Amino acid sequence: MRLGVCYYPEHWPESMWKDDAARMKALGIDRVRIGEFAWSRIEPTPGEYDWDWLDRAIETLAGEGLKVVMCTPTATPPKWLIDLHPDILPVGADGRARNFGSRRHYDFSSPSYFEASAKICTAVAERYGRHPAVAYWQTDNEFGCHHTVVSYSDAAAKRFREWLRARYVSIDALNAAWGTVFWSMEYRGFDEIDPPVATVTEAHPSHRLDYRRFASDEVVRYNRMQVDIIRAYSPGRPVAHNFMQLFTEFDHYKVAADLDIATWDSYPLGALEEQWFDPSIKAKWLRTGHPDFASFNHDVYRGMSKEPFWVMEQQPGPVNWAMWNPAPLPGMVRLWSWEAFAHGAGCVSYFRWRQVPFGQEQMHAGLNRPDNRLDVGGVEAQTVAREIADVLKADGESQVAAKVALIWDYEAKWLFEIHPQGADFHYPRFAFEYYSALRSLGLDVDVIPADAPLDGYSMIVVPPLPVLPATLAARLASSNAQIVLGPRTGSKTSSLTIPATLPPGDVLPIRVWRVESMRPNVTEAVDGGGESRHWRDFIECGEGVQVQARFADGHPAVVSHGSISYLASLFDDAYTQQVFERIAGAAGLAPRRLPEGVRVSRRGPLTYVFNYGVTPYRIEEAARFVAGQQDVPPQGVSIYRSH
Amino acid sequence: MRLGVCYYPEHWPESMWKDDAARMKALGIDRVRIGEFAWSRIEPTPGEYDWDWLDRAIETLAGEGLKVVMCTPTATPPKWLIDLHPDILPVGADGRARNFGSRRHYDFSSPSYFEASAKICTAVAERYGRHPAVAYWQTDNEFGCHHTVVSYSDAAAKRFREWLRARYVSIDALNAAWGTVFWSMEYRGFDEIDPPVATVTEAHPSHRLDYRRFASDEVVRYNRMQVDIIRAYSPGRPVAHNFMQLFTEFDHYKVAADLDIATWDSYPLGALEEQWFDPSIKAKWLRTGHPDFASFNHDVYRGMSKEPFWVMEQQPGPVNWAMWNPAPLPGMVRLWSWEAFAHGAGCVSYFRWRQVPFGQEQMHAGLNRPDNRLDVGGVEAQTVAREIADVLKADGESQVAAKVALIWDYEAKWLFEIHPQGADFHYPRFAFEYYSALRSLGLDVDVIPADAPLDGYSMIVVPPLPVLPATLAARLASSNAQIVLGPRTGSKTSSLTIPATLPPGDVLPIRVWRVESMRPNVTEAVDGGGESRHWRDFIECGEGVQVQARFADGHPAVVSHGSISYLASLFDDAYTQQVFERIAGAAGLAPRRLPEGVRVSRRGPLTYVFNYGVTPYRIEEAARFVAGQQDVPPQGVSIYRSH
Amino acid sequence: MRLGVCYYPEHWPESMWKDDAARMKALGIDRVRIGEFAWSRIEPTPGEYDWDWLDRAIETLAGEGLKVVMCTPTATPPKWLIDLHPDILPVGADGRARNFGSRRHYDFSSPSYFEASAKICTAVAERYGRHPAVAYWQTDNEFGCHHTVVSYSDAAAKRFREWLRARYVSIDALNAAWGTVFWSMEYRGFDEIDPPVATVTEAHPSHRLDYRRFASDEVVRYNRMQVDIIRAYSPGRPVAHNFMQLFTEFDHYKVAADLDIATWDSYPLGALEEQWFDPSIKAKWLRTGHPDFASFNHDVYRGMSKEPFWVMEQQPGPVNWAMWNPAPLPGMVRLWSWEAFAHGAGCVSYFRWRQVPFGQEQMHAGLNRPDNRLDVGGVEAQTVAREIADVLKADGESQVAAKVALIWDYEAKWLFEIHPQGADFHYPRFAFEYYSALRSLGLDVDVIPADAPLDGYSMIVVPPLPVLPATLAARLASSNAQIVLGPRTGSKTSSLTIPATLPPGDVLPIRVWRVESMRPNVTEAVDGGGESRHWRDFIECGEGVQVQARFADGHPAVVSHGSISYLASLFDDAYTQQVFERIAGAAGLAPRRLPEGVRVSRRGPLTYVFNYGVTPYRIEEAARFVAGQQDVPPQGVSIYRSH
Repeated sequence: MRLGVCYYPEHWPESMWKDDAARMKALGIDRVRIGEFAWSRIEPTPGEYDWDWLDRAIETLAGEGLKVVMCTPTATPPKWLIDLHPDILPVGADGRARNFGSRRHYDFSSPSYFEASAKICTAVAERYGRHPAVAYWQTDNEFGCHHTVVSYSDAAAKRFREWLRARYVSIDALNAAWGTVFWSMEYRGFDEIDPPVATVTEAHPSHRLDYRRFASDEVVRYNRMQVDIIRAYSPGRPVAHNFMQLFTEFDHYKVAADLDIATWDSYPLGALEEQWFDPSIKAKWLRTGHPDFASFNHDVYRGMSKEPFWVMEQQPGPVNWAMWNPAPLPGMVRLWSWEAFAHGAGCVSYFRWRQVPFGQEQMHAGLNRPDNRLDVGGVEAQTVAREIADVLKADGESQVAAKVALIWDYEAKWLFEIHPQGADFHYPRFAFEYYSALRSLGLDVDVIPADAPLDGYSMIVVPPLPVLPATLAARLASSNAQIVLGPRTGSKTSSLTIPATLPPGDVLPIRVWRVESMRPNVTEAVDGGGESRHWRDFIECGEGVQVQARFADGHPAVVSHGSISYLASLFDDAYTQQVFERIAGAAGLAPRRLPEGVRVSRRGPLTYVFNYGVTPYRIEEAARFVAGQQDVPPQGVSIYRSH
Repeated sequence: MRLGVCYYPEHWPESMWKDDAARMKALGIDRVRIGEFAWSRIEPTPGEYDWDWLDRAIETLAGEGLKVVMCTPTATPPKWLIDLHPDILPVGADGRARNFGSRRHYDFSSPSYFEASAKICTAVAERYGRHPAVAYWQTDNEFGCHHTVVSYSDAAAKRFREWLRARYVSIDALNAAWGTVFWSMEYRGFDEIDPPVATVTEAHPSHRLDYRRFASDEVVRYNRMQVDIIRAYSPGRPVAHNFMQLFTEFDHYKVAADLDIATWDSYPLGALEEQWFDPSIKAKWLRTGHPDFASFNHDVYRGMSKEPFWVMEQQPGPVNWAMWNPAPLPGMVRLWSWEAFAHGAGCVSYFRWRQVPFGQEQMHAGLNRPDNRLDVGGVEAQTVAREIADVLKADGESQVAAKVALIWDYEAKWLFEIHPQGADFHYPRFAFEYYSALRSLGLDVDVIPADAPLDGYSMIVVPPLPVLPATLAARLASSNAQIVLGPRTGSKTSSLTIPATLPPGDVLPIRVWRVESMRPNVTEAVDGGGESRHWRDFIECGEGVQVQARFADGHPAVVSHGSISYLASLFDDAYTQQVFERIAGAAGLAPRRLPEGVRVSRRGPLTYVFNYGVTPYRIEEAARFVAGQQDVPPQGVSIYRSH
Repeated sequence: MRLGVCYYPEHWPESMWKDDAARMKALGIDRVRIGEFAWSRIEPTPGEYDWDWLDRAIETLAGEGLKVVMCTPTATPPKWLIDLHPDILPVGADGRARNFGSRRHYDFSSPSYFEASAKICTAVAERYGRHPAVAYWQTDNEFGCHHTVVSYSDAAAKRFREWLRARYVSIDALNAAWGTVFWSMEYRGFDEIDPPVATVTEAHPSHRLDYRRFASDEVVRYNRMQVDIIRAYSPGRPVAHNFMQLFTEFDHYKVAADLDIATWDSYPLGALEEQWFDPSIKAKWLRTGHPDFASFNHDVYRGMSKEPFWVMEQQPGPVNWAMWNPAPLPGMVRLWSWEAFAHGAGCVSYFRWRQVPFGQEQMHAGLNRPDNRLDVGGVEAQTVAREIADVLKADGESQVAAKVALIWDYEAKWLFEIHPQGADFHYPRFAFEYYSALRSLGLDVDVIPADAPLDGYSMIVVPPLPVLPATLAARLASSNAQIVLGPRTGSKTSSLTIPATLPPGDVLPIRVWRVESMRPNVTEAVDGGGESRHWRDFIECGEGVQVQARFADGHPAVVSHGSISYLASLFDDAYTQQVFERIAGAAGLAPRRLPEGVRVSRRGPLTYVFNYGVTPYRIEEAARFVAGQQDVPPQGVSIYRSH
């Protein structure tokens, strides 16, 4: 459990560096991330490196005993490089290059950029790879931010064709897998295939899905190139990347497989504003964030990190990039920090040390204000640093041991996005609402990929998983856990076609013989006072299937077969909670309904209680408190060991 | 009265064909449409045709006594053709080609495509034109779908200039007709004129209207080329095209003039979702469709078909292409089928035989499910097939004989779209609300073009008809019918300018001296409890004009002169019904207010009652029932002969 | 106080001209604006001028004693010119040329157009510069209309680089001023800098602000070229330009500095529809316009005009260009005319003489209808003409002498648009709501630029002024007036960075240490029953600062220091009125709350009362009436001298 901070020596007069470093140390920070946007200072002119300033900056930090997280600066190629190789620029769906002048102006498929990236990464890794203060690496910054995973450049088209050739070998195989006979879209060779863009009406869904898979693989390839270079020059230092919150445009599991640490950037208020939540929900949690949003991400990234995951960027105050940018309530920066640790984080690193007075992010708060006084977030970070010592004494750094698993899948997101069948069918919403119901019942949850081991779980929740591999179906069936399957599970083959025997397949003896999507002003009542929204599967039940609840028109809404339950719709929060409570009970998990805004986590011997709500919460259990106390005030945190 | 189905042998293993054909026949189907998307299978390589599979498919169908509707495959040119002639691709308003990868990726003005189309049509017509099982033809598929009527290609620009030259002969005549002196838009020659696109602010309205006329004429020309080829090689077989529901981007009367049968594709649930209706209306008729929507289209296409019109594609279950795709209530597929016949259809053909598991439309239901079991729609089609026999015995195939005519005009739609004066002035909405009021009064309606004979009608309703030809004004004035004119009638010359003596012209002695459009949250009360919406004409009344109702501010809302009434606004449904009831009464039509969701049609000696609503409806009249009974349940149909 | 009209002889048969002129004169009009869209008639072929018709038109008007406002025709270059120099066309943010076919299809930075404009201006000015009937000039027409200030052409890019070189001299200075080190956006030379467009995410804010400044300067340069030519050939005739209502895309103060008269085009109903007002407000003032909207513009343009400002185009009835176009209530054309005079106008000129039956604006009313009968607006103009005589007798043409000043700033609009921090932070809304509160208290207001003298004012209101020059801060501090500063005042340097000591700077001893923007469904209560919206500054108070009101969470909402008050948010209307009432009282201004819709103005010895509302208003004061009477009916005007 360590605190870190993101720092940009190149943004400040050198005269401030020493004081900054000393104040970091005094605050309780010991990890400092640098360099991820500094290319124009490292290589101001093609091929001529300026290491001096950076050497001195690292020495200054090292001088205070701080450890450096060194970044490759590839998220911001300098103007001279773009002018030398204009093909670096990514191409939008409108067919135009996306210009220099902000960041991430590069195409993952550009050969020029691949080469230029390898060169600068080699230079940086060679220079600092064995520096004693350089303890960690970060590749690039926030892969995919600003919709930069998918490009429609000629370079991308060329590599896509190669990717297809490798996947299908023969064009006949591709035509058969996609079903191009529909609308005479058959190809006579791989060279005839273009990216699926700017078509008269929607392009072929299988074509689109493969383009998304290809684009994701390009990110994997690009990151692996950087990791390989770093490992060669900087042995023994863990390599990380800072992923984004609920970001799904590439397969994070595949990128993380090449890393040592998965880290993510946590901005609970900005996320609330930018995600799918209704305006009333956005107003309700305006200055705290949604009680389950950061948690969900912690559990996602814990599930793909070899070493304990990090929060590489933690919101320290108001940000600048959401439609509206409210200020966190006092206490929230501390609460968010402890929540990360409670979910297993190894480090919480604040973004950024000091609010910068220029550029696009000048309105983004830091731990310090632009006038260099410590901001509210800085004071709270200091509190956290003090509390960490006590928690560590209480053995707080042990593992999170959840009995519930929730399966999370990136291809599912792409597939439903390409082929929604209802305009608001939003895969993350299903996963999040299931997760939220589990958390509202006081349960700890592992978020895992579809190919992860299932041993040891008492309950496994599968949000809509369109492609249900036979192996997973078998593993679920043979598991001792209670299984919950969301609607549309097993509804597609991996080529994005409908399975011959209809969904969901062999996992339980039902057939989804029809579906309907529902517009936002329509709901369908469910037995027991629930309401279904967005989607309905129409189910034929086979032998031994029990109908647990029906829609008002008589069709099954919840069915089960042995320990496997299937939900035909997305229910309202209360009904979802009720369904999950029953099943968790059957799994022997002792679910317990928490008051609104209260959440509980366990890590090792300690229990953490977080209060996002507006009324104090009293812990009834007999407890020895490591931080906080029996009454948890709004925005409060209590940490205790049960008697 | 026959049933048909759309079938794609190329989508299925040949081993299934025989069973499919036998099951079609057993179900009561005897028309099978094939081939409209099969170009890549018919001509897999430039110039090399593969007829074998299609020969066998036709033989298989013929072997079961089924008659084939053969299509030209021009809606989906294959990739190799696009690669040979990239100028085939249409160009969007953004100046970019609209790419291969879906369908309808062709420009009506492309000379390459005109030639390639003639070649493939000739090949298909030559091969099957005299085949005994080939009984009908369909040209292409859904002209204009996905906004493909208007293109901004160089080819279109070139042909537009020729079109203008033919229409105006001299550039001075064009300048005078359009009024290009406004804003110095005068042209010195036809070659100076570009398509009206991407201008700084709205382009000249007369210029835009002529571009729409030109684009419509290009569709007419293209269809005629196909019809001519088919007639040459396939004498005696009626030629059809499948139009779309409430589609207005080209003048359907002009295309239909070259056909034998006008057919249309009926998707009542998808249409409800995609049309202008308020969300509350969309929720109300979610799983039935609006009670007047399919009817309106039946009456539109009956009005342009030489032989009895067809429904070429009938929705059999949920579709895939609307924003949300609900499932029809049980009974609706039967109800929709009978509604088509009640309005004069010669054939109802379901789309499609079996849901296809791949491609863009894999979520579109068929009569059979992807697992080849008969779906609900298939069962209902079977019921219809059985009922047809009884109806035919009762002489059900006679003509529809309506006493009310409603004038429908495609140029009106373009003109108001170009020159709305109020953002939500939607021509089809006016026509539809008038039609709906008439239908809610139990009246049968002919929908006719502005140049159709008016003999025999007791009431003629003219939704806003901006260009009111002098001949039509005269025919209306000399008619014995009650005439209802909507607002903005006669408000423009055919060049899209204001008539010198102000609207509506000589048809009645009033002048519309001012207009106003009203934002959606504003209404104006009308005498007698009505509300006006969207639009108001301010009327000066001449001699003999009676003010039937006034707005709250005293301006006339409804005026009449002899048998001609003029409506100054679009009123709420109840008030519109009240106005039309009074006028229909004056026309001697015995209007009768039906309960919500109940509709009545008459064809020959039979009366058909349809119940879209939620409560049973009791037929009071003494009746001999051919189908159904005295009490018509929700989603029920009763067919009877009056005693 | 004179009436004028906009007239287009080229739109009408020459046979109508004489009658038109005679009827203008008879109506009371004596200024006629002509020629601004007549280029294609003046120069129908490159280099060949046709003056004959225009000579005759001017003679006809002169013959009736009318004075001509002659325009340069540069807003509508003819097609032949565009075909000769396609680089004249402006380029949109999408990188495409904006085509010929409407108006304003020119790029201010195009060298070809600069030259062509100089040529046609010279020709027109040479021909008519000394004509006795030509009494005024107008340059071009509505600079910037249809988003034409900013272009992304190569010509603009080239001139932008020159503009930057002139401003910054060295590239290091630019890099330092902008802070390009952020995200490695550093430039090595001016030639590397492109327009800030089509970047991956938002371009650098300082870069964007400078591009807006540059684009504004291009308008200034272009207008100055025309003014210089006119002055050379037409000595002694005042030169005007017709600005638009609440238009902010260029710095009007800089353009006006080169003119003699600032005029503007007043369309109160269209403006209401197109501006930011809520739908309920748009419905409330549907047929009158907002009571403060025209006034605000009068006061803005009075503040930049050397001679009394004009309304160059006054709405005479319904217009055609808003989303919805309602009809003004009877009386409003008279009311709007008198309101202009009350605010100091020298002339009110109606747009247009007669509704034209063709082209884009055929649905725009004129004083006469297309059938050449006088419209309602024409009748009301006639009334105004009669009343002017009485008002002139009563010395009505003296100066407006306001004791309240409100500072209006164009760069503020650009800066907040580029860098809003909350999606609905709309600078004009702040200025307008402050202005409206002042007007609802019966106060006359001067709207002035930030560099205007402040002498003589008792109260100075500063809506959010991000760049607060030290000189202005000093002048405010040393003023004897009550000062009100809006939130975000002093929040930026002129390079769009954050001041080192935090906002607002030395003007009063507070620091804004944090800000938050609030989504539309969130408000924060303020002491005394108010509500704050959109934005909050978090304030640290220094010595001597009094907290006048607090937000519910305890942070200061209104603070003051001596005579300077600072508002931390945008409050609801009632609370804003209450705050301004208190401060105006302290300034000795005797504010008085007027009933809704009633407004009062003073010019010279006369008081004008306007009633926009729905109930009559009784003037309590003892008065001698020049027009109207003690009871002012809805849509009424009374003009009186106090006893």
